[in-house]
Amino acid sequence: MSEIREVTRTLAAWASGLDGKRIPAEVRREGVRSFVNWLGCAAGGSSHDTVSRALAAVMPFSGERRATVVGRRERLDELHAALVNGIASHVLDYDDTHLKTIIHPAGPVASALLAVAESRGIPGRDLVTALLIGIEVECRIGNAVYPEHYDRGWHITGTAGVFGAAAATGWLLRLNPQRMAWALGLAASQAAGLREMFGTMTKSFHPGRAAQNGALSAFLAQAGFDSSERAIEAPRGFARVLSDRQDYDEITEGLGERWEAALNSYKPFACGIVIHPTIDGCRQLREALGADVGSIASVELEVHPLVLELTGKKAPRTGLETKFSVYHAAAVALLRGDGSPGAFTDEAANDPAIVALRERIRPTVTPEMHEASARIKVTLRDGRMLERFVERAIGSRERPLSDEALEAKFVDQAAPVLGAAQAKRLVELAWSVESLPALRPLAEAAVPSGPAQASAASRSQRAASSG
Amino acid sequence: MSEIREVTRTLAAWASGLDGKRIPAEVRREGVRSFVNWLGCAAGGSSHDTVSRALAAVMPFSGERRATVVGRRERLDELHAALVNGIASHVLDYDDTHLKTIIHPAGPVASALLAVAESRGIPGRDLVTALLIGIEVECRIGNAVYPEHYDRGWHITGTAGVFGAAAATGWLLRLNPQRMAWALGLAASQAAGLREMFGTMTKSFHPGRAAQNGALSAFLAQAGFDSSERAIEAPRGFARVLSDRQDYDEITEGLGERWEAALNSYKPFACGIVIHPTIDGCRQLREALGADVGSIASVELEVHPLVLELTGKKAPRTGLETKFSVYHAAAVALLRGDGSPGAFTDEAANDPAIVALRERIRPTVTPEMHEASARIKVTLRDGRMLERFVERAIGSRERPLSDEALEAKFVDQAAPVLGAAQAKRLVELAWSVESLPALRPLAEAAVPSGPAQASAASRSQRAASSG
Repeated sequence: MSEIREVTRTLAAWASGLDGKRIPAEVRREGVRSFVNWLGCAAGGSSHDTVSRALAAVMPFSGERRATVVGRRERLDELHAALVNGIASHVLDYDDTHLKTIIHPAGPVASALLAVAESRGIPGRDLVTALLIGIEVECRIGNAVYPEHYDRGWHITGTAGVFGAAAATGWLLRLNPQRMAWALGLAASQAAGLREMFGTMTKSFHPGRAAQNGALSAFLAQAGFDSSERAIEAPRGFARVLSDRQDYDEITEGLGERWEAALNSYKPFACGIVIHPTIDGCRQLREALGADVGSIASVELEVHPLVLELTGKKAPRTGLETKFSVYHAAAVALLRGDGSPGAFTDEAANDPAIVALRERIRPTVTPEMHEASARIKVTLRDGRMLERFVERAIGSRERPLSDEALEAKFVDQAAPVLGAAQAKRLVELAWSVESLPALRPLAEAAVPSGPAQASAASRSQRAASSG
Repeated sequence: MSEIREVTRTLAAWASGLDGKRIPAEVRREGVRSFVNWLGCAAGGSSHDTVSRALAAVMPFSGERRATVVGRRERLDELHAALVNGIASHVLDYDDTHLKTIIHPAGPVASALLAVAESRGIPGRDLVTALLIGIEVECRIGNAVYPEHYDRGWHITGTAGVFGAAAATGWLLRLNPQRMAWALGLAASQAAGLREMFGTMTKSFHPGRAAQNGALSAFLAQAGFDSSERAIEAPRGFARVLSDRQDYDEITEGLGERWEAALNSYKPFACGIVIHPTIDGCRQLREALGADVGSIASVELEVHPLVLELTGKKAPRTGLETKFSVYHAAAVALLRGDGSPGAFTDEAANDPAIVALRERIRPTVTPEMHEASARIKVTLRDGRMLERFVERAIGSRERPLSDEALEAKFVDQAAPVLGAAQAKRLVELAWSVESLPALRPLAEAAVPSGPAQASAASRSQRAASSG
């Protein structure tokens, strides 16, 4: 039956024809929150070595420099800006999460959109509409294949994200339904990114490349470059080739009625989402322990199995690796009370006190445990025990970050790069994105305006110590 | 056991350290033949609509135009030139084939290399060395996962090709073994391309994008952008995630001793390789039938199962679709004796005589039949029957195209684009590529030097009628 369903064409027709006015206000509001969070993360990640190296590699190939790289003075053509901003927004693992699929939705989509919208004088309201369409498309495609697709080893933010970027850019370009289907087809043939890359720079390359590839798909389709119009559901299409599960209802049912884009959540901590309950609980324990935090003998964690599968690195050596170590996350949360980017740096990875404590963390997995829950038991050297159960971690749908918390997170990330005053001005522009007649002023406010930094390395240092 | 084997590092170390002088002369000779065939195909495909539309889409994003687009006056940055030349070299389905894996090896690799070598003054001998390294890498990775990988729906020319382009470009850039491994890791996270796209422009996008992505992988690795060093063999690496079969000996055994690159073959006909035996036999029957070819009542084909799986389109509507129709191929070979690009055009797809005959073609599959064999039985209206059995089709390893046939194929393709004299000059430069101190003169000879054409469409028309 699924062979004769027109999954790709249905999705393309919806995305092509959507009128932004028909999107409910509360969904648009979540779109703005997603944009604010994305922009802050792109600023926060912009001084990371990963971004500097990507820039060094692609600058010689840039076309006309019409687009802004958030947090940097370099400019790039739109496609390369999409790549680099996508990398920056994800490199700290501090971005957003669609919890049903662990997709980080905004990176692939907003990174393409800001670049294209900035250079074409597109109003902020259209950017938000396109962002919501893109997030909807990628999360629905993710829903159709998750978890089997992810379990097989695909980094779903890359593989689903490219569809989101294609649909969003295609909507900005006013692609008709057939060309929108081609754009999705071209996206399907670029869906890539392996989980093996977690802990390396190539992980954040995935959302960046998804943004760039999705945008290119839309530009190719606009030029009449054709593709399959059944790329998602065909026997040798995306869903069958990259997953053992295909639930096409997740893609086609209730389009425009129920919004996956309204379910986006934002990380309070700069690491894999599955460690968040542990960090939350460890921070609570640190407060309760006071000075006793220095005399911990051992820590028992009871967590969902995915925690060890995804973040089981016992002895991370680099900042990027610490983001995949529940051992490190628990230790640094107990010793420093920290889950910000500063808790996941090369320095923190090699701090003797953290190294010593993480060797005393003993996780056990409980399949019945909810992914957003964790139980932490601390035993002190004198035999005393203290326990915390986190039912739903901060940042989950049940305990979402408030606008104020989102803004604080934004400023914490942007201030070391832009200065406090400009960071504050940028976040105000971001909150009011829907009323901006063009994105250029916002993009300009995302570029450091003070005297040029001595070097990328010095900026990287500052960012690392700012957490 | 395979977990502890260092597959990626072994391959990277070999590719990084190879001295071109250690490659046997007969292997280098096949490298030159691969290059000649690739260049002719890129010229022949350069006027196709697929290429014109891709160019229209990417021109606005091109960086400094340091690289030649074969057969066109437009110039592009190296990465975009790799994309467009890769598309052009594959769009007519007339390129080369590594028969063990049905990879079309030169497209992803040579398209990256000509662009990079041209702009950097690299000598032709190094281009051939890098081409052989790239072909070796992609075919060995293909061998490790074929046929399960292909059967699942992956267009192996795209998925394996990106590794070839990365290794070849990496060798030109003199990457050390670790950075070469990173380049392969970045390639693994960009391995993409679905068989669903066959019959659309997106099919030839795959080798083009593989060339571009592989080259980018090498440039990123050169800039210190890191990646997994176990991207091929890790539990969530390329071979496990994209295939049910992994035979790592195919990758690591006998490197530098046995050369997959020496097994390349070149298509005599401009369509899927599995139809070649049928075309070969039908052309023989046409000669035997003479005027009786007009009174064919029916045609029975006995072929390998893959023929109908890959080329079972009964009523192709476009030139690109005819390349996946054994019905069309048999009819046009019988009626016109033709298997050149001119046999697979929109015009031929809709020729009433061909349409009428292809409806009388009845294929049956025989699993015991070799892929390079076919049996064709023609019944005339007066009841007479004629039969041909092709044991090994022309173009197979047993009946390879001679240098003279390769040159004729080159000139047939290049002359309509460049004029006969320039086509001849270009093929002479291509044959002598190993002695060229730089590639610029060859690249310049690949650009039309006469008065500008009226339009891309008119050139497209001429190319279509030249077959």
